[in-house]
Amino acid sequence: MEPRITLITLGVANVAAATQFYESVFGWKRTADSQEGISFFQLNGLQLALFPTEDLAQDARVPADGTGFKGFSLAHNLRSEQEVDALFLELQSRGVIILKQPEKVFWGGYSGYFSDLDGHLWEVAYNPFLPLDEKGNTAP
Amino acid sequence: MEPRITLITLGVANVAAATQFYESVFGWKRTADSQEGISFFQLNGLQLALFPTEDLAQDARVPADGTGFKGFSLAHNLRSEQEVDALFLELQSRGVIILKQPEKVFWGGYSGYFSDLDGHLWEVAYNPFLPLDEKGNTAP
Repeated sequence: MEPRITLITLGVANVAAATQFYESVFGWKRTADSQEGISFFQLNGLQLALFPTEDLAQDARVPADGTGFKGFSLAHNLRSEQEVDALFLELQSRGVIILKQPEKVFWGGYSGYFSDLDGHLWEVAYNPFLPLDEKGNTAP
Repeated sequence: MEPRITLITLGVANVAAATQFYESVFGWKRTADSQEGISFFQLNGLQLALFPTEDLAQDARVPADGTGFKGFSLAHNLRSEQEVDALFLELQSRGVIILKQPEKVFWGGYSGYFSDLDGHLWEVAYNPFLPLDEKGNTAP
């Protein structure tokens, strides 16, 4: 199995509201093949999908009930502490729910967290030990 | 904010056991800068991290308690139904917990689901409407 992820699907309570959040707060644009029941965003070689939580559970044949911590996070890495601060200020001005303001962290980086409308965690970080290539991809 | 994800962190009960699963079942190799408390896998321009669930929650300043459906899935797309079947057979022979055998789905594709040791959902799919480039990345 190749080391590759093609799609991350986030279960959401309301596809239209979640799409509006990712479009207006992140400034991302859903793809043309998005539909009323599902939105896609083209990212760096993979897509992010927003799909009703119940439908995702049903598609995977698992119970849809779940509460509390979802046990995962998505991160957007930048190239300096200043870039992290600037993005946080921008996101905050657009009304995201800040969970942790950016700060120096024990592993030597600098990071903060916020949440989307459905409680999915996003980290914005500068990690001096994780080089990014000219496009912003992680470079081994 | 660029349309980009750099890191997906999965909360796990036991980093060593989870790492062993991803190495032996998926055949992925953790990066050299992985440590006892965290494992990284270099994927297509982003990394996957395995990190204790409690530590991830603490890092994000959210309560660590959570039960049931985690509300997200990761997908590995392939180029045909045959490739999906072949990978499922391979994964099954290595003991993954199959949630749904691959089958034709309403949106016109072919997909199945399995779970990792911590209940994170993986979909293996063929989607005729999502073109992949020569490397296997989603191609807009």
